[in-house]
This record gives sequence, C-alpha cells and structure tokens, in this order.
Amino acid sequence: MFEARLTQADVWKKVIDAIKDLVQEATLDCTENGISLQAMDNAHVSLVSLLLRSDGFETYRCDRNLSLGLNITSASKILRCASGNDAITLKAGDKADTLTFVFESKNQERSSEFEIKLMDLDVDHLGIPDTDYKCIIRMPSAQLQRICRDLSQIGDSVVISVAKDGVSFSSNGDLGTGNVKLSQSANADKPEESVSIEMHEAVSMTYSLHYFNIFTKAAPLSSQVVLSLTENVPAVVEFGIEDLGYIRYYLAPKIEDDAD
Amino acid sequence: MFEARLTQADVWKKVIDAIKDLVQEATLDCTENGISLQAMDNAHVSLVSLLLRSDGFETYRCDRNLSLGLNITSASKILRCASGNDAITLKAGDKADTLTFVFESKNQERSSEFEIKLMDLDVDHLGIPDTDYKCIIRMPSAQLQRICRDLSQIGDSVVISVAKDGVSFSSNGDLGTGNVKLSQSANADKPEESVSIEMHEAVSMTYSLHYFNIFTKAAPLSSQVVLSLTENVPAVVEFGIEDLGYIRYYLAPKIEDDAD
Amino acid sequence: MFEARLTQADVWKKVIDAIKDLVQEATLDCTENGISLQAMDNAHVSLVSLLLRSDGFETYRCDRNLSLGLNITSASKILRCASGNDAITLKAGDKADTLTFVFESKNQERSSEFEIKLMDLDVDHLGIPDTDYKCIIRMPSAQLQRICRDLSQIGDSVVISVAKDGVSFSSNGDLGTGNVKLSQSANADKPEESVSIEMHEAVSMTYSLHYFNIFTKAAPLSSQVVLSLTENVPAVVEFGIEDLGYIRYYLAPKIEDDAD
Repeated sequence: MFEARLTQADVWKKVIDAIKDLVQEATLDCTENGISLQAMDNAHVSLVSLLLRSDGFETYRCDRNLSLGLNITSASKILRCASGNDAITLKAGDKADTLTFVFESKNQERSSEFEIKLMDLDVDHLGIPDTDYKCIIRMPSAQLQRICRDLSQIGDSVVISVAKDGVSFSSNGDLGTGNVKLSQSANADKPEESVSIEMHEAVSMTYSLHYFNIFTKAAPLSSQVVLSLTENVPAVVEFGIEDLGYIRYYLAPKIEDDAD
Repeated sequence: MFEARLTQADVWKKVIDAIKDLVQEATLDCTENGISLQAMDNAHVSLVSLLLRSDGFETYRCDRNLSLGLNITSASKILRCASGNDAITLKAGDKADTLTFVFESKNQERSSEFEIKLMDLDVDHLGIPDTDYKCIIRMPSAQLQRICRDLSQIGDSVVISVAKDGVSFSSNGDLGTGNVKLSQSANADKPEESVSIEMHEAVSMTYSLHYFNIFTKAAPLSSQVVLSLTENVPAVVEFGIEDLGYIRYYLAPKIEDDAD
Repeated sequence: MFEARLTQADVWKKVIDAIKDLVQEATLDCTENGISLQAMDNAHVSLVSLLLRSDGFETYRCDRNLSLGLNITSASKILRCASGNDAITLKAGDKADTLTFVFESKNQERSSEFEIKLMDLDVDHLGIPDTDYKCIIRMPSAQLQRICRDLSQIGDSVVISVAKDGVSFSSNGDLGTGNVKLSQSANADKPEESVSIEMHEAVSMTYSLHYFNIFTKAAPLSSQVVLSLTENVPAVVEFGIEDLGYIRYYLAPKIEDDAD
C-alpha cells in the first residue's frame, strides 16, 4: 500500500505544471525513501528529474516499491479540481491500476476523491553522470523566467556567458539583438533576490530558449533557481522544493552551427 | 407606460448574464406585480424562470400589461455599457416597439440612453407542476459552480446523491472518476457558507453537467443556491435575487441509458 | 551622437502602445529640441503627431539631426522587455543603422541592451493648418475610451454634438440606438475627473468609432484628453505627456452619406 499526504495541494499542482509541457506521460517511482520521476521530453532533447523525499510529507507510507505510469495531462486536470490549500493524499494499492487523489478542505466540510487510470509505460532510467560544473549561478527564478521570455521576442537561442562579476544572456534575430546582464549582488534583507556566481572557469554556451521557457514554468516552486554550466556538457536548471526535494532539468548546449 | 428603476445596474447585468447562454430570445412579461420571464433553452431540455417583484424596485410603474420580446444577446451588449453602480431605468410605451435603458452615474454627470428594438415572439407559458421535493439542499453557489466546473474535467454527467449527513457529486469518464462530498455544516459567522440538507427520502439522480455549468452562471446573484430534487422529476436550481425575487432553472434527470 | 534618457521606461511603452495599432513603421525625428514623429495610418485617413521635448528628458544630447526609420512593431516587442520603472536610454550614432535601447533596473543589478535595425522610410511631412476650433472639450481620457468602446457595441460611427452645458456621443445600428451625455462639471478635489467645454459655436459631426478606439489607446498617458472640433475640419484628440509634450491624433469627420 502506498499513501502520501501533504497539507498543501498547491505543491503537487506546481510540480505537475512544471512537468506537463515537457512530457505527457511519465512514471512516478515510489519507494520508502520517497517519490521520484525521470523522463525525457518527447523530442528526446532534455531530461526532467524530480525528487520528493518521504520525510517531507506529513504522512508517508510505501510498503513495496511501485511504478505508477501516469498520464500527466490527466493528472493536471485532476489537480485543477483541488483548491491550493486543500490537504492532498495520493493513494494506490500494491497492484494498483489506478491512483487516487484525495482533496480535503481545511474545515473538513468538503472531501473529494479522484481516481485516475494508470498506464503501462516503458521505463528507461538514464544514468546522469556526476559533473563538477565550472559555473554555478544562483538567481531569482522569476528573473530567469522573465529574461528567457523577453529574449524569445528576439531569437530562438540564448547565449549564457559567465564571468566573475556577472552573467549575461544574449540573443539575436531578424529584428536585432538583445543582451541582459546581471551583476553579482547579495541582498541580506531579501536573500531570495540575490544573484551569486561561483566560477572556476569562464563559460559561454548557447541553449534553446524554447526549452528554457518550459523549464522556468517551475519558477512558482522556488524563489531561487540554480544554473550549473560547463562547456559542452548539459546544463542543469534546478528548482528546490521546500522540505521535499527538487526538480532538475538537463539540456545539452547547441553546437555552433545551429546556434541561432 | 412602463418604467422600472433600480439603483444598481449590476442586478440587471447579472440577471441577463444568467440567462444569455441558455436562451437568445425571450419575453419580459411586465404587470403591476413585477417583471417575469419564462423560457426553454434552444434544445428544449431546460427551463428558466425569472421573477422580479415590483416592490423591490426603487420606482415601478406599469399601467397595462406588456409583453416585451427581447433579443437577450443585444440586451447583454447594451448592459455592458452600464457601470455596475449606475442607476438603471427600463422604460417602454404602451404599444412599444422599443425598450429604453437609461443609465445614470452616481454624480449625475453622465447619463446614457440606449434604445433596443423589440421582437415579436411566440409566447408559450409552461405550467410548472407543484412538487413536494424529497430533498432540498442549500449550499454556497460558488461551491456548486466550482464542483460542476471541476467534474466537467472528468465527464459529461453528474450523479447527485443525497443522504442525511451530506450530498455527493460524482462523475466518470475516460481518464477516471471523481467524487466530491459535502457535509452538512452550519456556519453561524458566515451563514452564506453553510450547507444544509432537508431530506425526506434519499435521492440519487444523474444530470447533464453542460446545463449545470450554464445555470451556475447565476452564482453572482446570490451567495447561496437551493437545489430541490426528487427521483424522476425535474430538479430545480434556485438563486435568490435580494429584495426582488429569484431565478430558477428546471432540468430533467438523465435516464440510465445515457447516464454517462 | 544621439542619447536620450528617461527614468521611467513606462513612458516609452505607453507612447509606442499609443501608436502601434495605427502605424507599423514611422520615423523618429531627433533634433536638439527633442524627438518628434508624424505619420498617417495605413489607410491614410488619420494622422498621429508626437512631440517629446528635449528638456523633459533626464539627459538629452543630439549633435546633429537624425531621422530614425523605426519598425513600430519591433520597438513594441523590445519595450515589452523593460520593466515599467527601469530607466531607459535611447542611443544612436550619427550615421546609425541601428537604434539601441538600454534598460537599467533601479538597483543597477540588471542592465539590458537591445539593438534594433533601422529602416529607410519615405518621409512626407504634412503641414497641419492652424485652426481656431469652435469647441474644445476637456474630459477624463478613461471616460472617452469607455464611451467609444461602449458605442462600438451599437454602431460604426459616433456623432459628437456639443452644446454649452454638455456634450453627447451617439450611435445607431441594427440593434438600436445609444446616446451618452456628459454634463460640464468641475471637480475641485479631482481635477482629472472634470469635464469642461469651451464653445464658440455649436458643433455636431460624425466620426469613425474604429479610429477613436485606436486613439484612446493613448489614455494611459494622461488622465485628461482634449477634443478640438470644428464643422467639416479634422478633429484633434490630444493627450498630454507630462513634462515632455503630447500625442495628437487628427481625424476628418465622416460626410453625411456614410454617417452610419
């Protein structure tokens, strides 16, 4: 039997929103340690990796390992039926062909149960090699989201260039060029607005804005985002999920020829 | 001569919004007692019945009975030209082929007059038989609206099942099943959030969500809605209109064969 | 060299928004006195004239006169990349084929540079004859915007009729007629809500609502708008731009035959 309860349905709403534009079907792997999900997007260009640790849940029970093949689009529809501050419980039997979402209002006067049919999905776990990234940038996630959206007005790609004192995002296209520079800055009062750069080697690589725009849909999960970059190695875009874990996106840089 | 004035144009805006997705043309029947409207939807599946009593108006005068054939879509366009807290007066002559809407701003600096052409409509008044309903449910109208919208994600029909302590709304479809349960609850501080159930006999009937979604567009008119149910008899969904009257919708249950 | 800085990017956003639905390409004429733009709409029915005086800018430098051929749609995209209260600097070299927009956040942590390609545009400066207008109406711009939008529900044209004590806007169409009357009113507490009428001769002329709806997109620039009317002469619709200048629209009245 599997049962995992959170007091804020909002967390699951945001997690599924952060995935649904990238993959339409994926497997939730449930163990006693927690829930994880790993999937490549349909075009097999990027990878999303989710971890929600069992000890971050209000109650968590998983008697035996389960792989729940989920239609993400359906899950998203179901989660729209929860109010953000309903409590939410996911439940499945040991040989389940359905996953149950239970939503309970704070005052207990409303309780909803939605049962979603599960799917048989091929599981291919991808090894993600450990990398010592040359540059690690921490910045407000809303700012990364805004920059990627803005540069999409200009071009299809973004060149991210990191130097000791700052990071720049630039694009070019038919109408001209755009370049946004962020300086390293500590904001003691509002640490969530800080920009910090840890650099072992300068990096300048080109990425698809299309994917960055999808990744930054996870911005509501976390006020800060961590970008880990190394030349010619997939970038990692990580959003923490308070008390629970993280969602990470991996995206290979574009090679020069298709840079714009 | 007919003339009826309200201090809040908002009331008429909400009334017309509550009708316009169901019927595109309908007759306003004006008598010295007030204004009423009765119409079946285009598919002749549901009935809407409106009553606005003369004594709820700020001023009301109706020298002789009038039947004003109204294009509801046009009336809705005209009402969008009023600010919510303009005063509103409806006026028509005794042999009118137009209906005049007058909107006046609070400070009297703006006054608008819109004249709408009337139509000749066939009038068929439908007798609505008196019924002693087996179950009467009073609940927040926003909650009924939300439940019907949510369950539309799942299926086309809703099964409403009433028991002494609560009422449940359930649907099923391709992606799975959904079931929302409300418990009876008195909220002395916020009576508009109470759920009360008056039950003489358990009822469980299936209704079209499409129509319930249209009916609940009347939710802005009233914080509470009253559902009156009896097996195999049309359900009544009633929204009160403060000081003036009500809008009621009648909808026959679905028979088993087309239940989903 | 040309360089002009404002502390509020919002001003340029609103200016370009006020132009972009009327003309897609236009020339910014930069001199030591300021920046001006004059253009007819694509259908050659109306004229827009913009003036931003040099002394209204925080810093302004223009070594020699420049005509910058601008794709307004592209400029609008670029300006969407600025936050409203970023500082904004426009820059161009003396023989520029690009115009640079620099956006700086208040705390200086973000600075963006967008370079837009310029175009060779035919310039035809139109002489606007001086006219002593018979009627000058000052009124809240939001109110003019609302009236024009409302009357568009009714018809394609608006008849503006001015008398000593008030001004009326009326339309008619298939569904009926509409008529909005504003009284002259001084509001000492909120002068921006006043309606004032200066009348030397009564005027009643018909104008295209389509164009008035485009002109009133400038409403965010100014709380008041000035309408200057004379029979059989183009109307002027003017919005002031605080400290800087104005945007004016000219529109010929409709002749009787196509009045509705």
